[in-house]
Amino acid sequence: MTTAILGGIQQYLDEQRSRVDEALDRLVPSADAYPTTIHQAMRHSLFAGGKRLRPILCIEAGRLFGGDEESLLYMGSALELIHTYSLIHDDLPALDDDDLRRGKPTCHKAFGEAMAILAGDALLALAFEVLSAPGSIPARGLGLSRKLGIVHELAHAVGTQSGMVGGQVVDLESMGKKGDNATLEYIHSAKTAAFIRAAVRAGAIEAGAAEAGLDLISTYGEKAGMAFQIADDLLDLLGSKESLGKTAGKDPQQQKLTYPSLHGIDESWRRARQLVREANAALEPFGQRAHRLCDIATYLIARKS
Amino acid sequence: MTTAILGGIQQYLDEQRSRVDEALDRLVPSADAYPTTIHQAMRHSLFAGGKRLRPILCIEAGRLFGGDEESLLYMGSALELIHTYSLIHDDLPALDDDDLRRGKPTCHKAFGEAMAILAGDALLALAFEVLSAPGSIPARGLGLSRKLGIVHELAHAVGTQSGMVGGQVVDLESMGKKGDNATLEYIHSAKTAAFIRAAVRAGAIEAGAAEAGLDLISTYGEKAGMAFQIADDLLDLLGSKESLGKTAGKDPQQQKLTYPSLHGIDESWRRARQLVREANAALEPFGQRAHRLCDIATYLIARKS
Repeated sequence: MTTAILGGIQQYLDEQRSRVDEALDRLVPSADAYPTTIHQAMRHSLFAGGKRLRPILCIEAGRLFGGDEESLLYMGSALELIHTYSLIHDDLPALDDDDLRRGKPTCHKAFGEAMAILAGDALLALAFEVLSAPGSIPARGLGLSRKLGIVHELAHAVGTQSGMVGGQVVDLESMGKKGDNATLEYIHSAKTAAFIRAAVRAGAIEAGAAEAGLDLISTYGEKAGMAFQIADDLLDLLGSKESLGKTAGKDPQQQKLTYPSLHGIDESWRRARQLVREANAALEPFGQRAHRLCDIATYLIARKS
Repeated sequence: MTTAILGGIQQYLDEQRSRVDEALDRLVPSADAYPTTIHQAMRHSLFAGGKRLRPILCIEAGRLFGGDEESLLYMGSALELIHTYSLIHDDLPALDDDDLRRGKPTCHKAFGEAMAILAGDALLALAFEVLSAPGSIPARGLGLSRKLGIVHELAHAVGTQSGMVGGQVVDLESMGKKGDNATLEYIHSAKTAAFIRAAVRAGAIEAGAAEAGLDLISTYGEKAGMAFQIADDLLDLLGSKESLGKTAGKDPQQQKLTYPSLHGIDESWRRARQLVREANAALEPFGQRAHRLCDIATYLIARKS
């Protein structure tokens, strides 16, 4: 059954990814726009073959509540700008020190550290510029309130308090130390799940979801995000450089605190599957309308890269 | 006359700075909030004795149009978060490689490069979180539209297209090369003037200024910002480490393209004074009500650090 689901979902993901790629190409200054180096650096990392999972999750969550397709695509693409900023900075020598990302040289390898730092900064700022752009705002008070709520949601999810930066800090500080489960849960929740949760919430808020619906989609995002990070840790441990497109086995080499390092491989798979079941259970009230989101959650832990 | 103005303005600036410092202390997580290291790093740079000129310019521009004091203070403080992010990243070894800032170790010297990169990221994200916070929004459609406009304005001013990152890129790429005036003007305009212009515009937008008023305050911000950067270049060249609180003479050492390197010291002072006159001339229609902003522009090129 899983194989059948994966076949169907892969085609769907490929189609959605093409739409997001096209939207991103329109949002980011062209490679020959002055000053050219920074735009080339931004585009190098942005168009390195990302799966666009966060935009797709945002769009699909918005569809569940009847959101506008164009607005969702635009907003989802802004999420990918933020995600790419975080990858560029995480890869820097002072942080994870990665040379390869998606089979290509990381931003600082291709453009130098200064340009990589600035490209990350610029992508983060551009995301908020896009999210607040007048063109994307319906001329209604409610639309404005939603847009501002989404800016707030995403800015918080990037930050230090249960957001990406906070997760990255604890991740770095856990290296080489004997970790505990509470620290591990914080890292996964803040570094990965918070932004995936924010991605589906952003889509739902844009579509005008009521509080009860937002709660369900938040649970889905949180659980799916945690499962995603466990799968990421497992792929790092078990995958090859060829399938991953990045250096494999970096986590044990850097003595990182990961799910498999703390609980072992079998227990990690079990926990990831359980989290996906819990994520999808949260969407049961939506019935068949939520099948895409359920399939994506299944895909998150079945993927090979 | 200038001495009398400076005496008065200094007291005023000190009072305003205290207000901004208090607001910033409320906005940024405390130093013992988990994860503590990042909050300590953010606070280290944020409370290193900054002059808070951008918040004060924002607040004073808003007052000119009858803005709400609390809203302006809140927004002005968000501007300082963005400014501090830019200083932390500019000081990094891969960029300007500065050990001292305002007489204290730079963020990466005190907390390491990884934490400095993340502290800058977090301050940038926090600024947008603050600017979009529900608590700061009057429950009116117009208020929402202004807030969103300000997010857009500031995000653009950080970015690559005539914004801070763009200016920093061209600044870095101009090092050691024979520069021309067009490149120098771009660097000053994008790296410094764009954000000072955005600061006064943000205050004016918050206060509901009409298009004609916005145009005048934009001219003031642009001209005062250009004068500020020329004064900065001159201080680097002529100041001492003691008065500046940072390493003096870095620009010639790094063969940076600056106003004095291209036009000489006398012509630089002449140009800075002319820009301040032009900045203040733009505010003539406001008469005596604009005297604080005029005094601040005068101060920008008379300061010793």
